[in-house]
Amino acid sequence: MSDSVKDRPSRVNDKPSRAEKTRLTRRRIVAAAADLFLGEGYGATTLDQVAARAGVAVQTVYFHFGNKATLLKEALDVAAVGDDEPVALLDRPWLEEVTAEPDPARIIELWMNVGLEILGRVAPLLAVVRATMGTDPDLAAQWEANEAERRTAFRALAGMLADRAALRPGLTVDDAADLGFLISSAENYILSTGALGWSPERWRNTTATLLAQALLGETPS
Amino acid sequence: MSDSVKDRPSRVNDKPSRAEKTRLTRRRIVAAAADLFLGEGYGATTLDQVAARAGVAVQTVYFHFGNKATLLKEALDVAAVGDDEPVALLDRPWLEEVTAEPDPARIIELWMNVGLEILGRVAPLLAVVRATMGTDPDLAAQWEANEAERRTAFRALAGMLADRAALRPGLTVDDAADLGFLISSAENYILSTGALGWSPERWRNTTATLLAQALLGETPS
Repeated sequence: MSDSVKDRPSRVNDKPSRAEKTRLTRRRIVAAAADLFLGEGYGATTLDQVAARAGVAVQTVYFHFGNKATLLKEALDVAAVGDDEPVALLDRPWLEEVTAEPDPARIIELWMNVGLEILGRVAPLLAVVRATMGTDPDLAAQWEANEAERRTAFRALAGMLADRAALRPGLTVDDAADLGFLISSAENYILSTGALGWSPERWRNTTATLLAQALLGETPS
Repeated sequence: MSDSVKDRPSRVNDKPSRAEKTRLTRRRIVAAAADLFLGEGYGATTLDQVAARAGVAVQTVYFHFGNKATLLKEALDVAAVGDDEPVALLDRPWLEEVTAEPDPARIIELWMNVGLEILGRVAPLLAVVRATMGTDPDLAAQWEANEAERRTAFRALAGMLADRAALRPGLTVDDAADLGFLISSAENYILSTGALGWSPERWRNTTATLLAQALLGETPS
């Protein structure tokens, strides 16, 4: 953190700014909450436990997040992008690389590399959400928001493939988006790496092959 | 309870036997429980409500089923086979038809017809299980038992396709079973008919095509 002060010498002293301290505190609380949700389950986790693990007063947790559902949402957002910068997933540099790629099959590969990264971080928390949403309307809404974001992303993928005239004959962009969303769902990741015992890489490779078959009409090799 | 004595004065009349009455009572309780789980949610449903809806005393519910998790298991079993006969799904006549079919693509079609029937009945209850299992270890066990049964079924399908030398080159029976299980998962049915808004028939047709591509190596048309 002292580095960042050197970067901005005008702040005069070498202490972290108030904004930086707030951000570090929030980050610590979110990380503690994520650990507890995964270890103890969402229902069993209390805000007191979160505060204790983060080393802050429980009032601080309430002040920053208000309730447990907000904490889970923050934890999911952090997991989705891998940091707590306020930059949405679809505004990140990886998408530029995908957009610049001419080869449709390679687009799917790059897409699935990113999908693997994201789901590797997000899936454990998503599994918590999914298994608890029946008893918590906030979590059900969270799950739906997450699914809606994923659908938007797959519409972008289908559009890129259509721009390259790569969709197999008869397949509309909308149908391609739906198919892509379904084939590479978070549910399938959870099922593959859980019940089936696949490595995350096997899930990625299998899913990329299924996507190429279904969207591009490639014959499996 | 005094009624039951009046009902069977001599056992030589045309009234239902004791065994039949018991079965009807159990059936009514299970149907009431299924309705309530779907309408009110599993967590919110009480055995008192189940008893009231079934028109029996709550002690009768306890006597026959003991607890809510057992009721859910019964409801799932009834939904899976479509009746309450004690005959397992893989011992039913439909499997004979599939086994006798020589054409691999047709085997997948027949398989998906049955899959559609089963999931059409089971999926709403499975969605209840899935959304509640994080707060109830009995439900988590129920979900896993259900998944294990589905895996067994897909091993049978993969075996039939292998017997006809129909699996695409390089695909083992085990891998084919895993792929089939994944592609036509209950999760995908719930996602397709829920978030994607597909008709059950669209799910069946899409899934049959994906299966033919992935298992038989058919080029999509």
